[in-house]
Amino acid sequence: MIDRLVARIKETGAPIAVGLDPMLKYVPGHIKDKAYREYGETLEGAAEAIWQFNKEIVDHTCDLVPAVKPQIAMYEQLGIEGLKAFKKTVDYCKEKGLVVIADAKRGDIGSTSEAYAAGHLGRVQVGGRAYAGFDADFMTVNPYLGSDGVKPFIDICRQEKKGIFVLVKTSNPSSGEFQDRLVDGRPLYEIVGEKVAEWGSSLMGSSYSYVGAVAGATYPEVGKALRKIMPKSYILVPGYGAQGGKGADLVHFFNEDGLGAIVNSSRGIIAAYQQEKYAGFGEEHFGEASRAAVEDMKADIAGALEKAFA
Amino acid sequence: MIDRLVARIKETGAPIAVGLDPMLKYVPGHIKDKAYREYGETLEGAAEAIWQFNKEIVDHTCDLVPAVKPQIAMYEQLGIEGLKAFKKTVDYCKEKGLVVIADAKRGDIGSTSEAYAAGHLGRVQVGGRAYAGFDADFMTVNPYLGSDGVKPFIDICRQEKKGIFVLVKTSNPSSGEFQDRLVDGRPLYEIVGEKVAEWGSSLMGSSYSYVGAVAGATYPEVGKALRKIMPKSYILVPGYGAQGGKGADLVHFFNEDGLGAIVNSSRGIIAAYQQEKYAGFGEEHFGEASRAAVEDMKADIAGALEKAFA
Repeated sequence: MIDRLVARIKETGAPIAVGLDPMLKYVPGHIKDKAYREYGETLEGAAEAIWQFNKEIVDHTCDLVPAVKPQIAMYEQLGIEGLKAFKKTVDYCKEKGLVVIADAKRGDIGSTSEAYAAGHLGRVQVGGRAYAGFDADFMTVNPYLGSDGVKPFIDICRQEKKGIFVLVKTSNPSSGEFQDRLVDGRPLYEIVGEKVAEWGSSLMGSSYSYVGAVAGATYPEVGKALRKIMPKSYILVPGYGAQGGKGADLVHFFNEDGLGAIVNSSRGIIAAYQQEKYAGFGEEHFGEASRAAVEDMKADIAGALEKAFA
Repeated sequence: MIDRLVARIKETGAPIAVGLDPMLKYVPGHIKDKAYREYGETLEGAAEAIWQFNKEIVDHTCDLVPAVKPQIAMYEQLGIEGLKAFKKTVDYCKEKGLVVIADAKRGDIGSTSEAYAAGHLGRVQVGGRAYAGFDADFMTVNPYLGSDGVKPFIDICRQEKKGIFVLVKTSNPSSGEFQDRLVDGRPLYEIVGEKVAEWGSSLMGSSYSYVGAVAGATYPEVGKALRKIMPKSYILVPGYGAQGGKGADLVHFFNEDGLGAIVNSSRGIIAAYQQEKYAGFGEEHFGEASRAAVEDMKADIAGALEKAFA
């Protein structure tokens, strides 16, 4: 799957994941009205609204980008109905040829991580049959529990040819509270990054590992250090756009071949129509606004990479 | 909710949470057969089997214990059908007067943690109405992202009078890989423990905080240190029984009043009938075996506490 992701990034020229994090406040009124008319102001209605919203965005961007990153929390908050919309979204994106990165940040003790891995990337055995619960291509994993909490994910990745991105340095303001604390004179995120490289060396694709890392665009200097520590790990970079990261900040997360990182933007793409810059599209044409935002982001990153590595 | 948990622990004399982590291999054949006859060897059949299994265990133990801790991964692995069984389990346990600790170990950047908190502990607004997605009483939270990833949970706890347990030192073998690394000469878990105490001081019940911690029974010496660092935080202690923790290991997690900790056992209780010790009950009477295992665990802990604090 990492080879497929790399191939799709080369084909599209866009190292971009569209973050499908549909909060109801991003969903245009006409979509919500229609869903509520059909299902009422219920969890079912809300789930229908975010599904229709996602579908329109996917339809308008799927030829431009290699991947989407649905944030499962935005679905989980709507309970069972929300999770049905999550599954529908995952399945639809795969149908459209997109690589799906489930942003779930799961992580637990061994047997429990195994269950998460089976549910999101693998299959579960029921009597004589095997079923996939959610069936994403990649998922994000929290490393706080250490190797035996991460390895079950890697084992399932090996079986299923899927991948993970392990949280190393997150994009939020207080990520430094624990992640930056010095251990033997070096920040904890570097120690975690070394483990990611070690875990990843056991499961390589043709040029990059199935085990990637998450490092936020909001900390570009960290990207530089991590790039050296984990040369073979793809870095999933959140925090572009709404969280403050810019194209020029991103170059450190890439290798000189222009590969090695995939940048996520959520609000900046899916709620583009709410920005002044794209307001001209109008709420009705929010999908086109998202497409324009992807095109701008692609140009921003390509320009920065060209400047850095030309 | 922390006051209710403490009151129920005093009433039952059992600082015990039954870990409802129903793997299919723990479910007796007759329960699976019946569920598969009705729904086939499908995810729906598997979900029905674990729900019937849970129900029997809850029916046989709910008068003995204050709380249950369903591990959501065991449901999530069965996809949507599994999560329906999770919700049914949460609702049923609450009906039976049990405090429900959703073991979900969620944690993300601010707006995403807010969504998890709304989904599991709070409510989500859909048009003019508010709905609870899963509606547990407590949930476990992963602190790797720092304060701004944890505070949204605390905000929802304040509104809803619910609580969280933050991972500090987990019970698994490689928990030390990051959690034990020395920061300014002290293990990281102590730094996290200090934060838990700080977060907790902002949301106190009558004697303990709504913000508790998770620390594994498998590391009793750590319990001693954390008990001092977080005197007002309830400690949820996994790792008893199957993972190796014993009653005598647990005393360090408690305060001298015999309060301050609640010990979880999952496999040791729910799959008790598979142990030699309780095999006499027979597979058909697995609920009674679980009840006997709870009674033995209660006596083990009470004996250890009496010896330590008499």
